[in-house]
Amino acid sequence: MAEDGWTECVRSLKGVILDMCGVLYDSGAGGGAPIEGSVEAVKRLKASDLQLRFCTNETQATREKFVAKLRRMGFEIDVSEVFSPAPAVVSILKQRGLRPHLLVHDDVLPEFDGVEKSDPSCVVIGDAADNFSYQNMNSAFHVLIGQEKPTLFSMGRGRYYKETDGLKLDVGAYMKALEYACDIEAEVVGKPAPMFFQSVLNDMGVQPQEVLMIGDDLVNDVGGAQQCGMKGLQVRTGKYRSAKPRSI
Amino acid sequence: MAEDGWTECVRSLKGVILDMCGVLYDSGAGGGAPIEGSVEAVKRLKASDLQLRFCTNETQATREKFVAKLRRMGFEIDVSEVFSPAPAVVSILKQRGLRPHLLVHDDVLPEFDGVEKSDPSCVVIGDAADNFSYQNMNSAFHVLIGQEKPTLFSMGRGRYYKETDGLKLDVGAYMKALEYACDIEAEVVGKPAPMFFQSVLNDMGVQPQEVLMIGDDLVNDVGGAQQCGMKGLQVRTGKYRSAKPRSI
Repeated sequence: MAEDGWTECVRSLKGVILDMCGVLYDSGAGGGAPIEGSVEAVKRLKASDLQLRFCTNETQATREKFVAKLRRMGFEIDVSEVFSPAPAVVSILKQRGLRPHLLVHDDVLPEFDGVEKSDPSCVVIGDAADNFSYQNMNSAFHVLIGQEKPTLFSMGRGRYYKETDGLKLDVGAYMKALEYACDIEAEVVGKPAPMFFQSVLNDMGVQPQEVLMIGDDLVNDVGGAQQCGMKGLQVRTGKYRSAKPRSI
Repeated sequence: MAEDGWTECVRSLKGVILDMCGVLYDSGAGGGAPIEGSVEAVKRLKASDLQLRFCTNETQATREKFVAKLRRMGFEIDVSEVFSPAPAVVSILKQRGLRPHLLVHDDVLPEFDGVEKSDPSCVVIGDAADNFSYQNMNSAFHVLIGQEKPTLFSMGRGRYYKETDGLKLDVGAYMKALEYACDIEAEVVGKPAPMFFQSVLNDMGVQPQEVLMIGDDLVNDVGGAQQCGMKGLQVRTGKYRSAKPRSI
């Protein structure tokens, strides 16, 4: 963005949405580590006139635990300010009367406590990490292939993310595996789905063009925001450095 | 195929290529079980004037062990008559001077004994079954994403196969996961790659239109054969029954 465009953009802003992993902190062993300057940046945004929300595709913990981790790192963040895919998919399941088979991280399971899971009629996958075993993938596949019209919800569609000890495959890779095996297309809940960003905008009560989305993922953060009419800005932390242009 | 077309087809035949899993036997615990009538069918084909070869995407064993298993089931098959992806990919690796990182079944590893594997410059995946862990998938991903031009060889591109205890995800699903994560396209070695079928035809010394390929997979067996100018016939065993038209 040219200098003048940028100044104009900042003047018209009423709100900012921040991606979290790779922008505020790098995930990894022991919960990860904050990125230099990010605690102070959040503090300054909160002290400004701008509305602030956090938007993450994090599905390795409940929002409560996730926010508690970030607060321990020094971030002033409340659960009500954080938007993540699990509560969004729970809302969709209830609306459509669907019973999920879950292929997710153990630590995000409590988000689905109130959801009927017997005799599953769809599959929900998240960033399941080590739970992406061959056996668990086959169990999810069996539920899908046994349905007349297989329904797969994917909490995000990221290719990979950065942990402190290197890049890790994200849920999008496993979404593609199940899509291919069953010849279906998953319904993505989370970034970059427009419905997901819209729910954040509704909560802020502002127009898309008044909001800047800041993230480290060119497709899911910047691209997704721009498709909704927001402005998008890519930081040079998180997965940015290690990503070649063709692989983002 | 209409009745007349079929009679005409059989008259002009000089050779038959048989898929193995789902045609001769169903794989599964204890090595699997022969499909009714298939031992006798192979015997009759061998007694005929037709040339006979076997063409499999099996990558859970060396050809030697695989053929020994089928001989124990009663099939009169020699190793030299069987074409499988592992020897084909070894030949390509040597031609191109590539050193593979292997994500394959333990039992197929001996096929790669003579191949230099240090400092890998490409990834080879096969039907690795339980070896498709999250950790092993990340290791393969790291090799790929670390290359300037990532090269992924996939031994087959099947969606799933049938074992005696149900359907199992095949290598194609995991190929798609790595393709998506790295934004690349895999080179498929095995059916339905035309080069693979051509190597069988060369060995038989016949023209494609003189050969009938018989398999249970509409894409990899029948479609692959037809693209090479062969005739293709789908049996109603193996994955046939459980496959809906859209999911083959």
